[in-house]
Amino acid sequence: MARRKKVYEGKAKILYEGPEPGTLVQYFKDDATAFNAQKKDVIEGKGVLNNRLSEFFMDGLAAIGVPTHFIRRINMREQLIRAVEIIPLEVIVRNRAAGSLAKRLGLEEGTALPRPIVEFCYKDDGLGDPLVTEEHIIAFGWASQQDLDDMIALALRVNDFLSGVMHGVGIKLIDFKIEIGRVWDGDYQRLIVADEISPDSCRLWDVKTGQKLDKDVFRQDLGSLTDAYSEVAKRLGVLPVQATPIKPTLIN
Amino acid sequence: MARRKKVYEGKAKILYEGPEPGTLVQYFKDDATAFNAQKKDVIEGKGVLNNRLSEFFMDGLAAIGVPTHFIRRINMREQLIRAVEIIPLEVIVRNRAAGSLAKRLGLEEGTALPRPIVEFCYKDDGLGDPLVTEEHIIAFGWASQQDLDDMIALALRVNDFLSGVMHGVGIKLIDFKIEIGRVWDGDYQRLIVADEISPDSCRLWDVKTGQKLDKDVFRQDLGSLTDAYSEVAKRLGVLPVQATPIKPTLIN
Repeated sequence: MARRKKVYEGKAKILYEGPEPGTLVQYFKDDATAFNAQKKDVIEGKGVLNNRLSEFFMDGLAAIGVPTHFIRRINMREQLIRAVEIIPLEVIVRNRAAGSLAKRLGLEEGTALPRPIVEFCYKDDGLGDPLVTEEHIIAFGWASQQDLDDMIALALRVNDFLSGVMHGVGIKLIDFKIEIGRVWDGDYQRLIVADEISPDSCRLWDVKTGQKLDKDVFRQDLGSLTDAYSEVAKRLGVLPVQATPIKPTLIN
Repeated sequence: MARRKKVYEGKAKILYEGPEPGTLVQYFKDDATAFNAQKKDVIEGKGVLNNRLSEFFMDGLAAIGVPTHFIRRINMREQLIRAVEIIPLEVIVRNRAAGSLAKRLGLEEGTALPRPIVEFCYKDDGLGDPLVTEEHIIAFGWASQQDLDDMIALALRVNDFLSGVMHGVGIKLIDFKIEIGRVWDGDYQRLIVADEISPDSCRLWDVKTGQKLDKDVFRQDLGSLTDAYSEVAKRLGVLPVQATPIKPTLIN
């Protein structure tokens, strides 16, 4: 695909103008960042894996009627998506304590929660994406009460589905983050799942060994991130299309 | 487990008194029936597979907070379950047209539905488990409007989860049937998933080949039912515990 106008560049992805109005091209970079970009690296192949995995999860969601921004994959690193107005909140669903929740409430990593817990963080790198309450969200006008109710329902459906996907391949879905965007059919607003769903945005632990198969491998220096993401892709039968290897010219 | 008093015998399962009040032992038979028991056979190993698969699905549902009757597996053919008052309705969720819906509405098998459709059939073998409407259900007092709303919500959560499980292993969940039971915490009634979830009660098609991996293999004489169910179990990493083979005594 010819280079199009860059619309936005984030830490792990770039958005370009799409071929038609209302579409964008989402390009998956190999860049990995953690701790609000204080830790950085380039992990070869990560973008290819996340492009495929996000396609795989969003396809499955669409099949059960959960609307997403995904239209189709273009190539190994790019997918065509629907342009949305991103709600400036990270929507996090947690099945077990980990990461910031474990730290904030003094819970041991892996502690089962009484029920799935939905959290919202205000998307602002300068502030470190702080946790916010429904009071904050409504007072500052980031979303309405109706939006919040819809976002929670959407996030819990994604949790039921993704928990199922992972349960089927021996992986525990500890938590995940999604972003949600608004689209309009005339005056009627709908909320749809946007951004990406990948091991960058989930915590995934092997059921038997507890091995981490997500971005914590990078955050905590636990080994090869590509190996971890490849393991997830392999179990799900989602293997990246290999670039055709160039055959060596035989000299002798 | 010593033989206990038989409480109920159905076409594919037997219920025995459990070791404690409020529990039952559910025994999975090898009997297969179809077309309201007009077609019958004994399929060696089916009960063992369904016992394991139902455990696997109900365990996963419990982990996301969908309550079920499953307590623990006892042995290859038996599981301990919570005694419930079964609501006399089969709750069917359909993602694609098949079986009776395809026939009733003249839809081609496999046609995607506009959204998942929940149906209720009145459990009565003599009547052939007829489709009923909410009007019938409420008028005859089989369930209240609140029960129905709760049952639909429960069934759709099971659909989201099971669709995910199957999506993860290259299988399309066409439809499934569950039964729902009432339990009481004091005066407070809760509805929980009961009966079983297995290839006896789901339609499962391989994503790539369209091959049927469910009871339609038996209904339509498409090959070995055990092979089909074993394939599902294998993909999910749920293999039945093998009985220790008796080593042949070497005579010479």
